[in-house]
Amino acid sequence: MTDFAATRSQFHLPPGMIYLDGNSLGPLPRAAASRIARTVDREWGEMLITGWNKAGWMAQPAVLGDRIGRLIGAAPGTCIVGDTLSIQVYQALASALHMRPDRRMILSDTGNFPTDLYMAEGLIGSLGQGHELRCVAPEDVADHITDEVAVLMLTEADYRSGRLHDMIALTAKAHAAGALTVWDLAHTAGATPVDVAGAGADFAVGCTYKYLNAGPGAPAFIYVAPAHAGTVQPALSGWLGHEAPFAFDPAYRPGPGIERMRVGTPPVLHMAALEAALDVWDMVDMADVRARSIELTERFIGGVEAACPDLTLASPRQAQMRGSQVSFRHPQGYAVMQALIARRVIGDFRAPDIIRFGFTPLYIGPEEVDAAVAVLAEIMGKRLWDRPEYKTRAGVT
Amino acid sequence: MTDFAATRSQFHLPPGMIYLDGNSLGPLPRAAASRIARTVDREWGEMLITGWNKAGWMAQPAVLGDRIGRLIGAAPGTCIVGDTLSIQVYQALASALHMRPDRRMILSDTGNFPTDLYMAEGLIGSLGQGHELRCVAPEDVADHITDEVAVLMLTEADYRSGRLHDMIALTAKAHAAGALTVWDLAHTAGATPVDVAGAGADFAVGCTYKYLNAGPGAPAFIYVAPAHAGTVQPALSGWLGHEAPFAFDPAYRPGPGIERMRVGTPPVLHMAALEAALDVWDMVDMADVRARSIELTERFIGGVEAACPDLTLASPRQAQMRGSQVSFRHPQGYAVMQALIARRVIGDFRAPDIIRFGFTPLYIGPEEVDAAVAVLAEIMGKRLWDRPEYKTRAGVT
Repeated sequence: MTDFAATRSQFHLPPGMIYLDGNSLGPLPRAAASRIARTVDREWGEMLITGWNKAGWMAQPAVLGDRIGRLIGAAPGTCIVGDTLSIQVYQALASALHMRPDRRMILSDTGNFPTDLYMAEGLIGSLGQGHELRCVAPEDVADHITDEVAVLMLTEADYRSGRLHDMIALTAKAHAAGALTVWDLAHTAGATPVDVAGAGADFAVGCTYKYLNAGPGAPAFIYVAPAHAGTVQPALSGWLGHEAPFAFDPAYRPGPGIERMRVGTPPVLHMAALEAALDVWDMVDMADVRARSIELTERFIGGVEAACPDLTLASPRQAQMRGSQVSFRHPQGYAVMQALIARRVIGDFRAPDIIRFGFTPLYIGPEEVDAAVAVLAEIMGKRLWDRPEYKTRAGVT
Repeated sequence: MTDFAATRSQFHLPPGMIYLDGNSLGPLPRAAASRIARTVDREWGEMLITGWNKAGWMAQPAVLGDRIGRLIGAAPGTCIVGDTLSIQVYQALASALHMRPDRRMILSDTGNFPTDLYMAEGLIGSLGQGHELRCVAPEDVADHITDEVAVLMLTEADYRSGRLHDMIALTAKAHAAGALTVWDLAHTAGATPVDVAGAGADFAVGCTYKYLNAGPGAPAFIYVAPAHAGTVQPALSGWLGHEAPFAFDPAYRPGPGIERMRVGTPPVLHMAALEAALDVWDMVDMADVRARSIELTERFIGGVEAACPDLTLASPRQAQMRGSQVSFRHPQGYAVMQALIARRVIGDFRAPDIIRFGFTPLYIGPEEVDAAVAVLAEIMGKRLWDRPEYKTRAGVT
């Protein structure tokens, strides 16, 4: 059994803050600070250029990719770290389209995170070959998988509602139609048990700064199914994906397997933070995380629905259909969230009317759920959100 | 006048090491360690998600871009930080090609860094429109600028020899032929005075971990000429380049000017290091840096040629034709460099036979030049490189 008191002690959580936004940015693992300091002082400072070998920086993207692989059902040597999630979406999608030269449709849904759609749009514009990005409602995806579809590109958990797609069924249906799949695991890696290999996913990408807790701007990861890894042609073909980067050949030759998906110089400081963040994941079993997550989200939904009749559940009611977040709708959602944040209950707002709360068993328990419900009940009951200071849009959260 | 004793005191340099590889990875600015620690502990740790606004993370790519702009002749609001240099090459090149839909040729040279050529190759493969990457000898570039050329893509200083292209003349010739230019400043930003606006460059990209000293895996930057910035269509169209990223619109609308070249979530820890690294640049005048760099490279060439007749100068003899590095050829160049490194004189080797030394006036002076010459003279005079332990290829430096 996973010891969630032990995992909680691995994080720095500001006193008095109830942090329900780990689905946007995870908190600081205590060990990350010293790990980063060591990388700065003893590696960059003392080893300088020789750190690429001596400190293992060059090998880190593969080492860390394997450790993430364990959490998403990817065998060693099939997942690698680097770049941002937007870039990895492009890398995966462009590579997949290249494998279906006779088809022109990318199928996605309106619950996909906008950057995935934007990157697809940019790619289509560059290709200039008449590709189409078709976005349907999440529940209609299966019906639109036809033999016109080149690539089915979906985020497993809807960033607004937390609704989960059935990765196994949709991947099977896509394959039966001759399409490839690109799965974005931004809201499921570290949140729910994922099995990319078991589901037969062709490509998967994800980020490490949400549930994996690797810090702001931490790098993304990409998975390529073993069946494709030896033949895929990366669109973003950088020198560190070359078979022999330090031969400085004028012509590109893709590296072995997943290594070819690397592009440029990896972010060493962020890899140090990611390494420390992944150490916490060595303490947990994903099945326990999922069970605890369901317990927390059920408790939150029950508490809020009992106390706040003005809020409408925007997440699936059935626990197995949800990721590790709960969203409610309110016409003044922005102001409600600002009022919560002013009382140090941190969630986030997603336009037009969604307030969103992430439940992250590694450091959040039933006490925080109950405390958050109580604060939210007070705000709604006393209409505290109806103050002018909560209605000014300040930007991000 | 720049006080180079004062700039030197800003860096941590390991005692007993003569570091002539700042053209590959700059040393640790002393202030970077505390700046990074502050970002980790007080920003990520205490502010969590609110750090994007409160700590200014979201604005940093533009703030830092402007500070780099000062070093490369880019006006405020025309340069922005993010991603790796390979990605920025792709972003610039794809955007430029899109502006010349009737042309199919990318002209580059054999002195360009391989990743620039690889990224072009990958882009051409994705486009599938019959583009050609033509690589000619560096001295033949001007003769190959014809009205077939869509984009002239060059690295200003050759990574092997340090030979400088004439950015002003080549850009003018490209424009006269109706072509656009993409300049890679990897080996000139912070090394020589660069004036992208004065030269009329259309796009420029560069990295911050070499002469700018921002650390291993620090992000790259991109410049877009003001004439193009409002109309260019970014190929890598990510959410942070959107006009309103937090509106979560399903369709992409490019942000104002240079902002549209942003892609995904920026690397916050590396931006903290970059900020500290750029503080040192506030202490210097680029003309002083260039004068001192020439003094150091002349001194090194003179010393080595007097003491080491077996080494052949691979850099231009004329100082104005060189960047801030000096390269020599030797059939056993790899072993020579290994012997130097064993004696704590750090340069690097570039296949097939180049030993390369970077001269970085911010922290290297004539004493280090003379000491490096003395060690190299001993190695060559006594044939110390001819030991088996120096001939085993270990990988990176």
